[in-house]
Amino acid sequence: MDREPYSAKLGGPTGIYPYTVKVERYLEDLREYFHDRKLVEYMLSRGENPLIYVVYEISRESEGEFNVGCTIIYPGKVGDEYYFTKGHFHLKEPTSEVYIGISGEGVILMQDRSGNVAAEEIKPGTIVYIPPGLAHRSINTGKTDLVFLAIYPSDAGHDYETIRRSGFAKLVVERNGKPTIIDNPNYRG
Amino acid sequence: MDREPYSAKLGGPTGIYPYTVKVERYLEDLREYFHDRKLVEYMLSRGENPLIYVVYEISRESEGEFNVGCTIIYPGKVGDEYYFTKGHFHLKEPTSEVYIGISGEGVILMQDRSGNVAAEEIKPGTIVYIPPGLAHRSINTGKTDLVFLAIYPSDAGHDYETIRRSGFAKLVVERNGKPTIIDNPNYRG
Repeated sequence: MDREPYSAKLGGPTGIYPYTVKVERYLEDLREYFHDRKLVEYMLSRGENPLIYVVYEISRESEGEFNVGCTIIYPGKVGDEYYFTKGHFHLKEPTSEVYIGISGEGVILMQDRSGNVAAEEIKPGTIVYIPPGLAHRSINTGKTDLVFLAIYPSDAGHDYETIRRSGFAKLVVERNGKPTIIDNPNYRG
Repeated sequence: MDREPYSAKLGGPTGIYPYTVKVERYLEDLREYFHDRKLVEYMLSRGENPLIYVVYEISRESEGEFNVGCTIIYPGKVGDEYYFTKGHFHLKEPTSEVYIGISGEGVILMQDRSGNVAAEEIKPGTIVYIPPGLAHRSINTGKTDLVFLAIYPSDAGHDYETIRRSGFAKLVVERNGKPTIIDNPNYRG
């Protein structure tokens, strides 16, 4: 067979095993993404550079194939803003994505090109469908690791630049001890 | 947003909820698929027509979208052959599929156009990747429902005809009380 099938296990410290790619994102990789940039720069100047999230992925290469990735977002906040993934559009349209919550609790924000935002919870046993054309960012709103599986076309590609420049129109922050979705005053859509 | 995101829950009697499509397959729908056709005809002539499997699915319509389906194969055998799904190639190539085992235990057979067969276990927490070009059939080798999630492109399509005519090159049967993969003497590849 040209393109071999495989089997992998969910669970364990890497969420999925075996995997082919590991991506780590530290605070410095997200310095342009958190809304309190002054705080980020202050933390980095003091040598505080926490690991925000890790992605373990089984990547394929050909058209028509799927990547299967497990994202682990650690619990924590920068100021009042919960740790999150950068968030991205897919480069190739139309392509969609499916998330499956494994452990922890969080939120996914999905944003179209006009800045309309939808939000869904990510919890164990929850499936979230991200239709074509929506940028997506996941946020850990809990006190434990947020772990979820993502399945998407191998040739979808990642456009991080659009979100780096514009931000998301909504932020997920702690208010009175609870996760709350608010408008992003710095959104540049 | 044109194409709305959604959230669904795993678990419960339908495996996934809510869903948009339900497909039931009874023995009579599979009369040309089990290897002991005489036994199938005898059972049907006596009014025995058990439900073999059900698929609950969230279907979408546009290019670039994904269907998310939950298949429940009931435990049982026709003679020595465990209950299974019809099995199919995708009409559109190249398209792939991802399975995630939820409960029960089973096997997936994957077969290319030349009749080469690969097999993987389906168990809770197991991910199976079906690359483009492989027909796939799932078999419940356990004593409880086999439940698994399938994610595949909405426009992949189902070619059941090829497998209906040729069969799979391998069968999964009980031998000495254990699931065993054997050559299919009636394979017409």
